[in-house]
Amino acid sequence: MLSLIAYCITDELIPKMKNLFINAGLFGVDLCKVSKEKIPEAIGVLSGCVFLVTIFLFIPIVFGNGLMDRGKFPHNEFAELLAALLSICCMLLLGFADDVLNLKWRYKLLLPTIASLPLLVVYYVNFNSTTFIVPIPLRQFFGASINIGFLYYIYMGMLAVFCTNAINILAGINGLEVGQSVIIAISIIIFDIIELRGDQFKAHSFSLHIMIPYLTTTLALLKHNWYPSKVFVGDTFCYVSGMTFAVVAILSHFSKTVLLFFLPQIINFIYSIPQLFHIIPCPRHRLPKYSAETNLLYPKCVAYCILSNKRPKRIR
Amino acid sequence: MLSLIAYCITDELIPKMKNLFINAGLFGVDLCKVSKEKIPEAIGVLSGCVFLVTIFLFIPIVFGNGLMDRGKFPHNEFAELLAALLSICCMLLLGFADDVLNLKWRYKLLLPTIASLPLLVVYYVNFNSTTFIVPIPLRQFFGASINIGFLYYIYMGMLAVFCTNAINILAGINGLEVGQSVIIAISIIIFDIIELRGDQFKAHSFSLHIMIPYLTTTLALLKHNWYPSKVFVGDTFCYVSGMTFAVVAILSHFSKTVLLFFLPQIINFIYSIPQLFHIIPCPRHRLPKYSAETNLLYPKCVAYCILSNKRPKRIR
Repeated sequence: MLSLIAYCITDELIPKMKNLFINAGLFGVDLCKVSKEKIPEAIGVLSGCVFLVTIFLFIPIVFGNGLMDRGKFPHNEFAELLAALLSICCMLLLGFADDVLNLKWRYKLLLPTIASLPLLVVYYVNFNSTTFIVPIPLRQFFGASINIGFLYYIYMGMLAVFCTNAINILAGINGLEVGQSVIIAISIIIFDIIELRGDQFKAHSFSLHIMIPYLTTTLALLKHNWYPSKVFVGDTFCYVSGMTFAVVAILSHFSKTVLLFFLPQIINFIYSIPQLFHIIPCPRHRLPKYSAETNLLYPKCVAYCILSNKRPKRIR
Repeated sequence: MLSLIAYCITDELIPKMKNLFINAGLFGVDLCKVSKEKIPEAIGVLSGCVFLVTIFLFIPIVFGNGLMDRGKFPHNEFAELLAALLSICCMLLLGFADDVLNLKWRYKLLLPTIASLPLLVVYYVNFNSTTFIVPIPLRQFFGASINIGFLYYIYMGMLAVFCTNAINILAGINGLEVGQSVIIAISIIIFDIIELRGDQFKAHSFSLHIMIPYLTTTLALLKHNWYPSKVFVGDTFCYVSGMTFAVVAILSHFSKTVLLFFLPQIINFIYSIPQLFHIIPCPRHRLPKYSAETNLLYPKCVAYCILSNKRPKRIR
């Protein structure tokens, strides 16, 4: 119910606030279209805020029973939810700051790691299960499960960083960032509903509490970001989405399953590694070049000077 | 120790990031100075981020004992700290959004209220003491203490909104926002240290954990904001400061004492009421007008047309 209201509010708010963003200088021009219209950027901050506010208002409903009987209040579950909200809120802030200020790469890697620290503390205190279930074909080598101890926390920190950036680098077509997030969110929700009858139902209902408001606010955003885009979502949205998925994955113990839903992003990431580590020069926007004369797209070429042994600078 | 490092980092970071802010169009011109130099705006977001990161890194230290012995982990204290961080982080986001987008008044009042919701839930669960101690001269009328029940939560929600805006409206002179915050922070820290031997030492050490990193990051900011200002702090800083004080006041149970430290702000608030509610027209900046010719300041005059019964529009 509340999620439906959130959908309507986001849907209403986006057209209203559009001019505010353009006035603040937050706009881009669609690189592959004929018209050079100004399109507001970083609208993801709106859907992110509505999403956060919805979960805030959810708190008294979810913990209604605990509030009636304060002796039995589930402090650890409440701390989980707060840590999740804190991480998402930090990413919202970081993403918005990135859209406005264009932060450097080192901050983009450092800050999500720090933002996931409360999450890891909560995980350590509440579960501290650092065991991997080994997939069946590999069991003859490693046994049924391996306890990797401290490495597991590093893995979870990396997961947060990976998720936030994976959605960001698979972008460039109208609605692609939002579309992939909607698909992942729907996958997670279906998985949760199936698992709701299992013995882990608490973790899965927790994940549903977060994913349903996320899905509705994102759908409202998708409506406006669908081709032809009337708004751009900005890094804000990518970071919030990535962190939401990472939070759900970590606190509901299905980080490996979520990585499965991230398969297209992982493929794109591996495919992009040469550019990300600057082995091949990486243009600001990795899109084909648009030629207004022919209304067609041409790929960008890299002149790689192997013989002269210089790193190429120019991207034609 | 960590706080000292935070001071150095903030001090280093501000000059480095200055140009980033100017490039993003976040700058103002000092209204009362001859030079029309561009001064970066909203630098408060830097000190706010360093402040948050410091507390994040504090978590494992503060809860070190709890982490060793997970059976006795103080979930409720951890939830308190997380709720505090969440509220501050939300205000950081809101303040930065306000600096960039110039939000409307209704959002500025609504969002802090929602941001303080987790705080109120934590307060309800952990303490739920809604009793006022009556000051001695009034005891003959009301008795030693009054339990105002639900009204107390409304009062605390209002406190959060008041604190965030009170610092903001007492502004306009180089270093005034930061200076008053430093004074309030020092007052609270002294009060905490005195009370550390009392029976409420847990609440006061909690408040010290938050106030000390706050003070050091703010001092670094003050150094750059001191007359003549090299940076402006923006609404971001005012909101973060206000929320920090409100959080400390609510979770450490001395909201009345903090209001005492806020006396100058309360006086300014009462004095400004006619302008805030638009009984007298309120200019965008309530400062004397600067005349470059004479290098002197002249007060702004309001032509109040009582006879014609029209609300005046022009401010000379």
